[in-house]
Formats: sequence, structure tokens, C-alpha cells
Amino acid sequence: MNFKIRKKEFLDSISNAVRAISSTTPLPALSGIKFEAKENSLVVISSDSNISIRTIIKNTEKDTDILTVNETGEVIIDARYILEIVRKIDSPFINFEIIDGTLVKIYGANSEFKINGMKGSEYPEINFSVSDNAFSIKTEAFFEIVNQTAFACAETDTRPILTGVNFKAKEGILTINATDSYRLASKKVEIDSDLEFSITIPNKHLSLIYHSLANVDDVMIVIDNQKISFVFNNTIVQTRLLDDVFPDTSKLIPLSFTQVLEIKAKELANAIDRTSFIKSDGKNIVKLTITAEEIDITSSNQIGSSYENVKLISFEGDPFEISCSGKYLMDAIKAIGSENITISFSGELRPLIITNKEDNSVVQLISPVRTYK
Amino acid sequence: MNFKIRKKEFLDSISNAVRAISSTTPLPALSGIKFEAKENSLVVISSDSNISIRTIIKNTEKDTDILTVNETGEVIIDARYILEIVRKIDSPFINFEIIDGTLVKIYGANSEFKINGMKGSEYPEINFSVSDNAFSIKTEAFFEIVNQTAFACAETDTRPILTGVNFKAKEGILTINATDSYRLASKKVEIDSDLEFSITIPNKHLSLIYHSLANVDDVMIVIDNQKISFVFNNTIVQTRLLDDVFPDTSKLIPLSFTQVLEIKAKELANAIDRTSFIKSDGKNIVKLTITAEEIDITSSNQIGSSYENVKLISFEGDPFEISCSGKYLMDAIKAIGSENITISFSGELRPLIITNKEDNSVVQLISPVRTYK
Repeated sequence: MNFKIRKKEFLDSISNAVRAISSTTPLPALSGIKFEAKENSLVVISSDSNISIRTIIKNTEKDTDILTVNETGEVIIDARYILEIVRKIDSPFINFEIIDGTLVKIYGANSEFKINGMKGSEYPEINFSVSDNAFSIKTEAFFEIVNQTAFACAETDTRPILTGVNFKAKEGILTINATDSYRLASKKVEIDSDLEFSITIPNKHLSLIYHSLANVDDVMIVIDNQKISFVFNNTIVQTRLLDDVFPDTSKLIPLSFTQVLEIKAKELANAIDRTSFIKSDGKNIVKLTITAEEIDITSSNQIGSSYENVKLISFEGDPFEISCSGKYLMDAIKAIGSENITISFSGELRPLIITNKEDNSVVQLISPVRTYK
Repeated sequence: MNFKIRKKEFLDSISNAVRAISSTTPLPALSGIKFEAKENSLVVISSDSNISIRTIIKNTEKDTDILTVNETGEVIIDARYILEIVRKIDSPFINFEIIDGTLVKIYGANSEFKINGMKGSEYPEINFSVSDNAFSIKTEAFFEIVNQTAFACAETDTRPILTGVNFKAKEGILTINATDSYRLASKKVEIDSDLEFSITIPNKHLSLIYHSLANVDDVMIVIDNQKISFVFNNTIVQTRLLDDVFPDTSKLIPLSFTQVLEIKAKELANAIDRTSFIKSDGKNIVKLTITAEEIDITSSNQIGSSYENVKLISFEGDPFEISCSGKYLMDAIKAIGSENITISFSGELRPLIITNKEDNSVVQLISPVRTYK
């Protein structure tokens, strides 16, 4: 095994590969990255057995200077070591060769590293094949989906299915839902596909895929039995799905409202943020007292209390009070991302929903909390 | 107690005061900041009983808009709460008043906080008096002293005195030493004072003082029995001293050398940095193999090895080998801060020293380690 590779492409593939490496893997081979030098390509594989990444580096018609393979072969190298070495070698090209068994020499202009690897055959077989159940999406649209929903997942796995984001496709509409059972983030986008599916992606894997897609324009998403694959450039990132049934959230969103207000998002978020250090049992609960022209926001615990006042843009309905998590409100306002937001209520014990008049693709729902006076 | 104060000055004083607050103080009053509103001033005090900070805020001739005291009085407020409140109130002026016993109301334009404090009388008496044993120093010069020496202190308190930086004055020369017994950083500066003293300041307090001095031009340093005070603007930061005797380091620095080389500091530091992930027992040991024109830098452990090569600017003496901590070398090179550095040796089992031809005020000494082949 002997190849010469441009540092940029090599470092990019390794930086991406290490995302799948788990520090607690029981299988020693999985703490490494597998390199397969083939006739005209270098295959870089990493996995924690739930999420797996494969990148194929080869020359293109326009760019014939990326890779020269002098001898084919394969080896596994500890992920942290190879990342440090390739990151630090101060040279535009890097040479990589097996000099003895699994002893690898990696060198640039003035630096040379020798490192003991493992035999490529010790790496588990990973199936990167994909079916035709595929559709394409702009990564920008995918980022927006993740930013507007994923934060609402459950953090603890009391109900494991709630630690994932549900993607459901039917008749050209992709509906994305995330809920921790106290709040729900729901998003709808059109896709150019008549696929029908309902799958739930673990949120921690979604976050990893998100970061893999920096600098990518379009991504192809392939749905297979028990796995989803994201295909872009010469890379596949595939992850196992959560196999429980995602709860039906469609009936949670109220359809009629007793009060509807419009407010400047930033003013409300800043006011809530100022009270966020006032916590009881680790939670900041805010009471919203809404009258025709303004909201009073109050929060209190044993040590102190706060009072904020924000003017409304418009209000319909009777004055009333409702309490809920300040953090949930701030998360939802941030996810909506618009200058003005609409908050709709249907009673102090029913969920409130936050929307944006100019973009009805996203709905944020928050359950109120009972406050005892 | 009732005063109105400009947010900027109030926030600055509180941000500085919280540096002295320890989260593990046994005395509840010390988890708070003490505010004393006097006729024409506000005194802000904090302490962890080893380091104490006092700032006096008052109007100046040029700026009469900082503070209005309507009623004198004193109170202690939990440090984290008051910092959060004052940081977040979105108003150029802040009102602060006791409304009932120790219940304080703090408010700006649209925000209002109420918080329970403690009686000012529960705060321990802190003596901020200073003697005439004082000298002035540019804060820039003080920063350079700390940057070039403090990193060499011991981190563990096996020998408590070595966790401090020693300041010794005699005949107008201030000599600053820090050592963990494997390395020594030594700095000399002239001061306009004939004071004579030898004191050792705990490094963690020095770092705190360092950060207090951002945006300050000159600082007055006052040496008293068992304490040192830094006086600047309207603030005093005072800290207890380590009371053991600091070891005599003057004889550690060799006076004659068998080999002397000059090298580009950055090239050497980068080469060592590239090998720094190769550790045995958590330490990166580098072997320097020096010949007339170059240094070979090698490092190895069970998993791998590295080889780097850096050209010399000049070399006097016979080729030889020496091993030492790569981290200590990088720390010393960074502290010297010059483009080129001189490294002088007097044998492979004797300390090497790093200096800068253009500035002989600072010497960095590093003990070699024995390597077993």
C-alpha cells in the first residue's frame, strides 16, 4: 500500500470520518479509520456501528493532481492519531505507505511519522449499498428543517423514539416533527418525489449529518429498510433509524383560538432572556399576563423576582394569563426566525402555538404549566 | 439605601468583583457582593478571604452623571444574581433601592427585579489599608512579567511555595522567578524604587489580578506584611502571600556553555507542536539531535513515532543529543516571544537555557530528561 495524496482532500475526508468515531466502542477496529487504496481511488471508512461514513477520493477530469496510488492495499489507523498527523503535516502533498506489516509511514516535506495500524481485514463489513428510494433536497432547506425542529427532541431516553426527528413523506409533502411531549416543532416542505415513508432519525446522528454537509449544495437522501443514507460529492453518511412508532402529533395542534397576538420576536426573546436566571428546580417558568396592548412577563423563586413589559403589535381576544417554560419560548422564537411572530392561545391549560404570518411551513407548540399561587 | 447609577460603571465594578467570589466559600456572606452607598460614593466589595477587591464609584469633576445617592445604607447581594441582573438590564441607568429589610428592587426602563439580600453587617471586616511601601509600574510591563514567568509555576501543591511567582526587589531591580523544579522562568526589570523585599504571590491570584488590569495604564503595587495590594483607578485588589521561603534559583542558571545555537523560534515551535500528540505517560518527550546545520526532532511511544527536521541559523560546539519535555520547550519559546531564539547547553544531563539576543531581561531554563533506549 503506497499512495500520495493532496493534503486538503485527505484532511477533509479524515475530519469528516472522525465524526462517526465513538470513544467507547467495544470493537478496537472501530476506533480507527479504514483506508483502502484501490487502482484509482482511496476509500476512507469510519463507523460506530450505528452511523457509518464512506468517502471515495479520486482524480477528476479537471483535477488530476489529487491522488496517485502506487500500490493498492488497506489498513486501519487510530482515528485521533491520523487526524493529528494529517492536520499538522506542513506540506501540500502527503505520502502514505505501509513499510512493514501494519507499520505505516506518513510523511510530508520536513515531517515524518510512523504509526502502527491494524490489518484492514479486521474491520467489520459495512453495507453501503443504497436503493432507488431516493429524493434530492437543497442542503440549505435541510439545514432549515433541522434548525427549526431538532431542538424540540427529548434529551433523555425515557421514550427512546422521542430522541429522534420524524420525517414523513406522502404525496410530495415532507412533514418533519420533533417532540419531547411538552413541546412540538412541526415543519412541512415540498419534495419532488412521490415516495411514501415515515422514519425517525436519532437527533445526535442528525446533528452529525448536519455538520458533514457544510459546503455542500445538494444532498440525495435514500430511504432503505432500517437505514437512511445521505449521499453528496463522493461521500455517503448512513445511519440506523429508531424502530419504534413515532406518536401521531397531527391532532395536537389546536385549530381554533381564543386569543391571538402579534409581537416583535426579538423584544419578547430579550425580555424572557433577562429573566432566565430565575429558576425553580432548574427551570425558568415565566408567567405571561396579556392585555390589549402589552405583555407583562414575570418570574420568581425563593431568592427574587423579575418583571418585564413588552408592547404588542396587535391582539385579538380577552385579557388573560398563561405560564410556560421561558427556555421553550426562547427556543421556539429562535427557530421561527422571523422579525414578528404570532402567538395563538386556546385557554390557559391548552398548548399555545407560535407561527410566522409570512411563512406557514413551521409551527411551534408549547404546553403551558400550572402555576400555584 | 437608594441610589441611581450609570450601568457601565456599575457593571464594570460588579464584573471585576465577581472574580474574587469563590463558589465553595463556607461563609454565606462571601458568596455575595457588599454594596455600601455613602454620601457621595458607592463602595463595592468582594472577597474569598484570600483575595479581596474594593471599588469606589463616584462622580468626577468632568463626569457628574455617574452616581446619585438618595439614601445611604448597605446590603449584600448574591454575586451571580446581581451580575446577571445588571448585565441584562437594557437601560443606561439602573436604580437600586432597599424596599423592605433586605429585599432590594433593581430596575431600569422596562425591567424590574426584586431580590433578597443579606444585612451588610454580616460581611466580615476586611482591612484595605495600605502602607507607603509602594512603587508604580506600567501595566504593560506587568503583563509581560506575568506572561513570561507565571506558566512555569508548579500546578500541584506538593511544595506550596512553588505554586506562586516570586517577586524580589533590591537596588532598583525587580527579579521575578517561577519554577516547578523542572523548569525556571526568570525575568528582571528596573523599577523606580529602592524598596527591598522578597514575596511570593499565588499564581491563581496573579492571574485574577492580570485580568482585573485590562484597560488600565499604570498600577501602584504596595507591599505590606503578608499581603500585596494592586491599586488602580478607584480599585484595590489585595491578596495574601505564600509565607514559605522561595528557593534560591540564582545558582541554577549555568554560566558557561558547551553548545550554543540560534534558530527561528516559530519553525522550532511548529515542529515540536506537530509531535505533541505522541505521548508516553501523558508527556510528550522530544529528542533533539543537533548537528552543525540542523536539529532532528524525534518522539516516540508504543503506537508510533515522528521525525522533524529544522535548519539552524548558527551553531557553536560539537554535535550532540539531549531530550526534554516538548511542552516545556514550546511554553518557553512562546514566553520569549522573539523571532529568533538562542538555546545554550552545557551537557546532556544539565539544564538548557533559552534566551533572546536582543532582550536579556528574560531567561528560560529547562531540565533535560534521561531517555532509555
